Amino acid sequence: MSPINLNADLGESFGAWTMGSDAELLQVIHSANIACGFHAGDPVVMRETVRLAIANGVSLGAHPAFPDLQGFGRRVMQLSPRELEAAILYQVGALQAMASAEGGRVTHVKPHGALNNMACADEAMAATVARAVKALDPQLILLAPALSALERAGEAAGLRVAREVFADRTYQADGQLTPRSQPGSVLHDAQDCVRHVQHMLEAGGIVTADGQHLPTPIHSICVHGDGPGAVAAARAIRTALEAAGHCLAGLPALV
Amino acid sequence: MSPINLNADLGESFGAWTMGSDAELLQVIHSANIACGFHAGDPVVMRETVRLAIANGVSLGAHPAFPDLQGFGRRVMQLSPRELEAAILYQVGALQAMASAEGGRVTHVKPHGALNNMACADEAMAATVARAVKALDPQLILLAPALSALERAGEAAGLRVAREVFADRTYQADGQLTPRSQPGSVLHDAQDCVRHVQHMLEAGGIVTADGQHLPTPIHSICVHGDGPGAVAAARAIRTALEAAGHCLAGLPALV
Amino acid sequence: MSPINLNADLGESFGAWTMGSDAELLQVIHSANIACGFHAGDPVVMRETVRLAIANGVSLGAHPAFPDLQGFGRRVMQLSPRELEAAILYQVGALQAMASAEGGRVTHVKPHGALNNMACADEAMAATVARAVKALDPQLILLAPALSALERAGEAAGLRVAREVFADRTYQADGQLTPRSQPGSVLHDAQDCVRHVQHMLEAGGIVTADGQHLPTPIHSICVHGDGPGAVAAARAIRTALEAAGHCLAGLPALV
Amino acid sequence: MSPINLNADLGESFGAWTMGSDAELLQVIHSANIACGFHAGDPVVMRETVRLAIANGVSLGAHPAFPDLQGFGRRVMQLSPRELEAAILYQVGALQAMASAEGGRVTHVKPHGALNNMACADEAMAATVARAVKALDPQLILLAPALSALERAGEAAGLRVAREVFADRTYQADGQLTPRSQPGSVLHDAQDCVRHVQHMLEAGGIVTADGQHLPTPIHSICVHGDGPGAVAAARAIRTALEAAGHCLAGLPALV
Repeated sequence: MSPINLNADLGESFGAWTMGSDAELLQVIHSANIACGFHAGDPVVMRETVRLAIANGVSLGAHPAFPDLQGFGRRVMQLSPRELEAAILYQVGALQAMASAEGGRVTHVKPHGALNNMACADEAMAATVARAVKALDPQLILLAPALSALERAGEAAGLRVAREVFADRTYQADGQLTPRSQPGSVLHDAQDCVRHVQHMLEAGGIVTADGQHLPTPIHSICVHGDGPGAVAAARAIRTALEAAGHCLAGLPALV
Repeated sequence: MSPINLNADLGESFGAWTMGSDAELLQVIHSANIACGFHAGDPVVMRETVRLAIANGVSLGAHPAFPDLQGFGRRVMQLSPRELEAAILYQVGALQAMASAEGGRVTHVKPHGALNNMACADEAMAATVARAVKALDPQLILLAPALSALERAGEAAGLRVAREVFADRTYQADGQLTPRSQPGSVLHDAQDCVRHVQHMLEAGGIVTADGQHLPTPIHSICVHGDGPGAVAAARAIRTALEAAGHCLAGLPALV
Repeated sequence: MSPINLNADLGESFGAWTMGSDAELLQVIHSANIACGFHAGDPVVMRETVRLAIANGVSLGAHPAFPDLQGFGRRVMQLSPRELEAAILYQVGALQAMASAEGGRVTHVKPHGALNNMACADEAMAATVARAVKALDPQLILLAPALSALERAGEAAGLRVAREVFADRTYQADGQLTPRSQPGSVLHDAQDCVRHVQHMLEAGGIVTADGQHLPTPIHSICVHGDGPGAVAAARAIRTALEAAGHCLAGLPALV
Repeated sequence: MSPINLNADLGESFGAWTMGSDAELLQVIHSANIACGFHAGDPVVMRETVRLAIANGVSLGAHPAFPDLQGFGRRVMQLSPRELEAAILYQVGALQAMASAEGGRVTHVKPHGALNNMACADEAMAATVARAVKALDPQLILLAPALSALERAGEAAGLRVAREVFADRTYQADGQLTPRSQPGSVLHDAQDCVRHVQHMLEAGGIVTADGQHLPTPIHSICVHGDGPGAVAAARAIRTALEAAGHCLAGLPALV
């Protein structure tokens, strides 16, 4: 059985506002994508999240986003390549400082929200993201959806690339996520998520909604901590993976 | 003759707005205090400033501030120690990333504006600043006004501390700057600045407006790039220092 | 029995983050202090809050704050009088537009957080707040803590002033709130709040922790919607006031 | 000769950063599009700009933008209709408050930058802008490029619509601006601008780069204050219009 990783977005509180179930989720996952202040996560939240992740043995990832607090980084923005590259450097660097102060180390980068969606479909933008990560530290792992433009850009840049699939999302025939606007795009039942994940790991690739198998390495499963039942679903996936004999590990051990 | 440093605040443009005479000033100074996005300096400006500083052989310093773009970091804000510490980590880390991407290294930290003023007078706040710098990297130099609480906090924390004096500001009997609200607080003539600097270097300490000598090491002279004649004054100071036989150097070579 | 008002802070969500129990609280109170985007409340939240308040027959108030989203407007900031005045105009104007678009009207202004605290103690700052409100619309009601500098500044400016007391806070001998850092500053039990309010209304003034009566008109009781039991306490206060024969009304009917 | 208006963007300074030649431009134009804080123009700048405009007899317009200070509102953002509508209400309301405080009145709205460009091409977005303006005050004038989707949406909403042409930009065969990326898109010579404007006014419509005439009412000429020679060009246009017998007026007198 190949080792596998569980990752989730963390540190999405801001100031007086709290979000997510970070403390619980940190007991389930092995790698955290930590908000860097542009869509969520003020400096205090970032540092506290880093501290908790380290205390739980969870590897640290930066989760940079468009500068859009009101939109939670989910709104399309058009930045020039140099604006985007600098914005990524800025955010990852800020998190690296938190990690240094807490005796840890940022080992991966995963873009957030609209930035991630756009970089998965747009080759030029994906290349910009990869260039920023590489400029910062060529040893950083790029965590990208399997079969995406972002994954390919990371490869092309010579980065270590970890491929992820989503536990609670179905896939179209082309390997891309079924848009949330379509019926059946999201799996709401924990056992459905478990089966979906196991199916893909056994198939050695993405299993589309119409039953095709698209071969790809799978290094990580993305789970969520918000919404009712999310943590329970994450826990069920972990339990099932362990029961099936998978070794669970942080990203640095996998790629 | 002891070696001496000239430092100035740089990278204070933001988005479509430009400020300062960075290109000219970089040919005069040896260490730059670079805005980190909270009071000025967006990520693109930061990266470009880092690039220019490196190209001019100027050592890189972070210039963290209160989160106050409208007030240019000049307005008093009361942050809790953990808010302030995290804000400093965040900003310095962001600049460190720019430095990494450009093949350089941040070697000093100098707080900006109201943060600097308050940390020079408030022991607890000074200790928080020093703690943040040390948490990030114990080799970072803290650039602080001579005879300030900030200088003492840096010493107490075991940091490398560089003491600065201001070329264009007069000093009160207690060694603190004459407030700008008082007549004679600012020297407007370049030759007055040159004489003021030389006087202090010869005296081996701060020379107050009433003629007292307050002994202190002086590692750096702070000059400015905004306002008419500012760059010319900075150049005149450098020329005079060189004529007097001083060796000019970046901060890392001095402390 | 004199008529009385219940007011509460509302619309303190922001983007993806929710806060408070606005829908429930709107069924209890008669006047809402609505966040204006500087400490909380983005434009979408503001409009939705205005809509809900109007639907519940609750009078609309602007709740301007320092520009400090991370600190939720609770951190001390020093703005110049013209900065503060313009910041208040800006925020109240933004809310007035939401009210216009929803067929309502902003009838009062209550400063938020650190701005309110500082304006209650600082005569010059209180005068600036009053001047801003008057410049905008001389018919606007200023909702201010009883026996505060802000109340006096509103009077001096010729504004309609509504005095409020806090249901869950005790008062010092000078009529000011017991600081939260001191024991006994906050009443946690709903019935204690009810008794505190009734005591003050019967006494015709603030009743201090040491049992003194400080005479003052009381137009409004400030209640809260956050924290466990807060809405229940607000409801208990309303029920008790109605049982005691008080007529409850929006602020415009009271001053 | 029909009366005509000159409009320009104003109040685009922010905090410590200044931009534009507002004082000079206010002596040339008759209507000002004033930044509302989202792309430029903090509250202090807004109020001062309103004061100056009133003192110069220039009519007041709001210039709302995407929330993007770093990008100066020039970057594409995708807001939902309710986000966009609320953002426009917020900004225009803030400016209305400044106008009230200074004894004036906002009489028109002109979207800025990317928001304007997108609303000129996208019917749904144009309708959202028009709906926001109408919700605020049905008497507000919408200042829109002639022959744009925004102009049509304003008409359809029953708003008063003022059509503008650009003095220094050439037009494509479809009546839209030649993109700045193409050669010949911008007229740099003042006399070329004067001729371009006169040509269009005589033709009673847009004159395209290939010499076609596209009939449209023209109520206003957009001029600029930034860049070398901009104010001089604006002045030359005004002088030529006056020499040709045109009566120059604020927007409210024209539509």
